[in-house]
Amino acid sequence: MERRIVIVGAGSAGASAAFAARKQDRKAEITCINAEPHPTYSRCALPFVIGGQIDTFDTPTVFNFNFYKSQKIEILPGTRVESVDTQGRCVRTSGGEFEYASLVLATGGRAKVPDMPGSGLDGVFVLRSRDDGASILECAQAGGNAVINGASFIALEAAEALKHRGMNVTCVIRSRALRSMVDQQFSKIVEEKLVHGGIQVLKGSAMSALIGEEKVTGAVVAENEIPADMVIMCTGTAPDVELAKSMGLEIGSTGGVRVNEHMETSAAGIYAAGDCVESECFVRKAPVLSGLGTIATRQGMVAGANAAGARLKAPPVLGASVMKLFDIEIGAVGLTEDFSKGAGFDVAVVAVKYPTHPHYYPGGSEAHVRLLADKKTERIIGAQVIAQSGAAQRVDTLSLAILKGMTAGELHMADFCYSPPCQDIWAAQAAAAGGLARRFERAKR
Amino acid sequence: MERRIVIVGAGSAGASAAFAARKQDRKAEITCINAEPHPTYSRCALPFVIGGQIDTFDTPTVFNFNFYKSQKIEILPGTRVESVDTQGRCVRTSGGEFEYASLVLATGGRAKVPDMPGSGLDGVFVLRSRDDGASILECAQAGGNAVINGASFIALEAAEALKHRGMNVTCVIRSRALRSMVDQQFSKIVEEKLVHGGIQVLKGSAMSALIGEEKVTGAVVAENEIPADMVIMCTGTAPDVELAKSMGLEIGSTGGVRVNEHMETSAAGIYAAGDCVESECFVRKAPVLSGLGTIATRQGMVAGANAAGARLKAPPVLGASVMKLFDIEIGAVGLTEDFSKGAGFDVAVVAVKYPTHPHYYPGGSEAHVRLLADKKTERIIGAQVIAQSGAAQRVDTLSLAILKGMTAGELHMADFCYSPPCQDIWAAQAAAAGGLARRFERAKR
Repeated sequence: MERRIVIVGAGSAGASAAFAARKQDRKAEITCINAEPHPTYSRCALPFVIGGQIDTFDTPTVFNFNFYKSQKIEILPGTRVESVDTQGRCVRTSGGEFEYASLVLATGGRAKVPDMPGSGLDGVFVLRSRDDGASILECAQAGGNAVINGASFIALEAAEALKHRGMNVTCVIRSRALRSMVDQQFSKIVEEKLVHGGIQVLKGSAMSALIGEEKVTGAVVAENEIPADMVIMCTGTAPDVELAKSMGLEIGSTGGVRVNEHMETSAAGIYAAGDCVESECFVRKAPVLSGLGTIATRQGMVAGANAAGARLKAPPVLGASVMKLFDIEIGAVGLTEDFSKGAGFDVAVVAVKYPTHPHYYPGGSEAHVRLLADKKTERIIGAQVIAQSGAAQRVDTLSLAILKGMTAGELHMADFCYSPPCQDIWAAQAAAAGGLARRFERAKR
Repeated sequence: MERRIVIVGAGSAGASAAFAARKQDRKAEITCINAEPHPTYSRCALPFVIGGQIDTFDTPTVFNFNFYKSQKIEILPGTRVESVDTQGRCVRTSGGEFEYASLVLATGGRAKVPDMPGSGLDGVFVLRSRDDGASILECAQAGGNAVINGASFIALEAAEALKHRGMNVTCVIRSRALRSMVDQQFSKIVEEKLVHGGIQVLKGSAMSALIGEEKVTGAVVAENEIPADMVIMCTGTAPDVELAKSMGLEIGSTGGVRVNEHMETSAAGIYAAGDCVESECFVRKAPVLSGLGTIATRQGMVAGANAAGARLKAPPVLGASVMKLFDIEIGAVGLTEDFSKGAGFDVAVVAVKYPTHPHYYPGGSEAHVRLLADKKTERIIGAQVIAQSGAAQRVDTLSLAILKGMTAGELHMADFCYSPPCQDIWAAQAAAAGGLARRFERAKR
C-alpha cells in the first residue's frame, strides 16, 4: 500500500509541503485539505490587487487546481477539518474522513483583532485572506475615509493601496511604523514617506473604539473621533493552533506549534510548517513567530519531504523581509536594536546614507543602511535598508553576512562588485560596515 | 623624527594607501608621487565620459589636490620615478629625491598592445588613462568608423560609448565576449546585445594589421580590410613592474609583483598594491592578476596602513565584477567553467532564466543566473548574472556565498527577502542554486 499523506492547509506552507512530498515519493497518496475555497494564492499580493497594480484576485494564483491534479495531489477546497484522531491516524473533515501515515499541519495564522466596542460593525475588516481583500476592495469603490489601525507591513501596504484607490487614508500608529522590523530612526523615514504620500499619520495613541449603527462611521483615537467609512485592523496575527491544541500537540511559548529541526511536532509522524509554528530565531536562538511567506515556503518543503520519508532540516530563520512603500523599498534582517537588547546583546550601531552610485555618475540615489553588530564578537546581527531600489538584494547580502557570522571588518572588505552605472566602489552595506569596523578598531587602541 | 612614507602612484591603490597611512599614523610624513599630471580619478569612469553620460574628464575626480593637502599628504603630479635605492631607502624622481622608511608601490598596469604592422599610426589608441580618454573623445568628434580590438569590459564599454557618439562601431572578437568573466552561453547573450545595440561584431578572427599613411584608415581582420577612422586596442593589461624589477623585487608567475598577505613585497618595508601586484585567487588558491578597482582600493588600504605601522591582512580576492551594456547589467564572481576545469575542479553547472518578480506582478523582468559548484564539496565556486538591474547586488550575495563556502543546498534555502513589488519568493540566485541542489540530491539516490 502506498504511503498516505494528508496536509491541512494550502497556503504557502501547505502547498509547498504537498509538492515536496510528491517530489520525495512519486507514489504516495497525497491529500491537501483547504478551508478556503480558492486555489493557492499569494497572500502578499492582496494589497496590490486592492491598490490596482494587479488586476484581479485570480491573478496572484500560485498553484491552480489543475496543477495539483497534474501532480496527482487530491485538493479539497472549502473543506474544514473537524478533528484529528491521532490514535487512529484519521482526519475528520466536512468532506469526509482521511486516514494518514503522516500529517502536515499548515493552518497558518489569524488576524488578531483587539477587543473594542464596535469591532463587529460593517466596514470593519482585517486583511488576511483573499475574501478579506475582496470585501475591502468592494467597500473601497465607494471612496470616503479609510482608517488603518496599525503600522505593520500589511497596514502600510493597505494604506497605500487605498490611497491609490482615491480614499482619504489615516494610519493610527500607537508606537511607531514597522516597529518589529526597523529602529526608531528608520521608522521616522517611513512615517515621513507616508505623510509625503498623502496619508495622515496619527501617532502615539491607540484606537479605543469604533462608532456607527450598522456600518462604521468613525474611530475613536485618544478621545477624538475621526471619520471612517472603512477600518482595517492590522494589529498583528496569531498562529492558528486551534486544531493542533485539540490534538494535544505541544504549543511553544510564542503560541505557535512546537516543532523540531525536522518540522516534526511533539507527535510522531505529525509535521507542521508556516505561520502556525514556532520557529527558532537564528540570531537569538530563541523562539519566534516568523509570519513570512518565504519561511513558510521553505518550512513547508522540509515538512512535506520529511512526511514522505526524507529527513531534511529546516533552514535557519533570520527574518529577511522587504516591502515597497510608494517609491522606496524598506528591508530588514536579523535583530532590531530593541530586540537585540532584549536578547542580552551589547550592540554597536551605525547608520549611513550612502550613494548607490559614484558621485560623478548621473542618476544615482542614496541608500540608508543601518547595521547592528555584537560588541563582543563584532559580528553583524541585524540590518535595515531603505533605498529607491535594490534594498531587497542588499538585505539578501546582509542575511548571508549574519548567517555566516561575518564581522563588521570582514563585511567592510568583502569583494563586492563595482561599475559606475551599477554600484559605487563601496556597496552601501560595506560602507556602513566600515563605519562599525573603524569604531571597533578605535575601541581597541 | 616622524615616519617617512613614500607612495608611488595615485590611482585607486596609491590614493587608498596614502589616506590609510594617514589614518594609521597622524604624524607620518607622506609623499605620493604620481606619473600622471591629474589628481586621482576613476579609471572606470573614462568610457562614460567618452559616451557622454559624464560631462567632462574632471568630473570623475575622486580625490583632488586640495583633499591630499587637507590630509597633509604631499602629492607630486606629473612626476616620474627614475630609480629607487633600496639600500639607502631613497626614491629618485624627476622632481627630486625622497627618503622613506616605508614605500608603497602602486604603479598600476599598462595596456598591452599586440605587435602588429601599423599599431603606431595616428588614430590607434589604448584606453587606460585619462589622457587616452581625452584623445579618443577628440578623435570621436569627427565621427566615422571605430574598430574595437577585443571584447573585455573596457572594450565593450568603449564600443557602446562610441556608438552613443554616433560612430559606426565594429568589435573584433577573436574568441568570445568577456571570455575571462563568463561562460560561452552568457558570452552569446552579450554578443547579441552588442548587435542589438547596433554594433557590428566580427567573431572568430584576430586583427592582424592596421593600414594607413600617417593616420589609420583600416584594419585587417581575417584577410579582409575593414574601414577604420579610429582603432582602440583593448587587448588586455599587464602589471607595470618595470620599477619593481629594477629594484630587484620578486615577480610572480603572472608577471605581477609578489606580495604576502600583508601586501609586503620580497623587500622588508616595501609594500605593493593594486594592478601591479599578483594576488591570490580565493577559490583556486593560485596566483591571479585582479585588474579590478575594488581590489586595488582594498589592497591599497591594507598596504598603506601597514606601511604606517599596522599589520592588516589583505581581504580575499574573488573577482566580483559588473558592467552595464546598453540596458543590461552583466556581473560575475569566482571561477568560470574554463577556469574551474583548468584548476582541476569537477563542476556541476546550472543556468536559469528566472523572474525577478512574481509572475502576477507587473513590470518584472528575467535574470539570467549561471552557477558553478564543485561536485565534490557541493560548494558554489563561480557565478554569473545578467539582468536589467540589480545584477551587481545579486553578484554581491554570490560573492559572500563563495567566500563562506556555502553549498548549493544551503544557498537555495537561504533566508532571502520577498515582496511582490521587490523580489519573487525565490531570489533568482536561490532558484538557480535549487537546481544544482536537486541535481546533487538525485546523484546520491
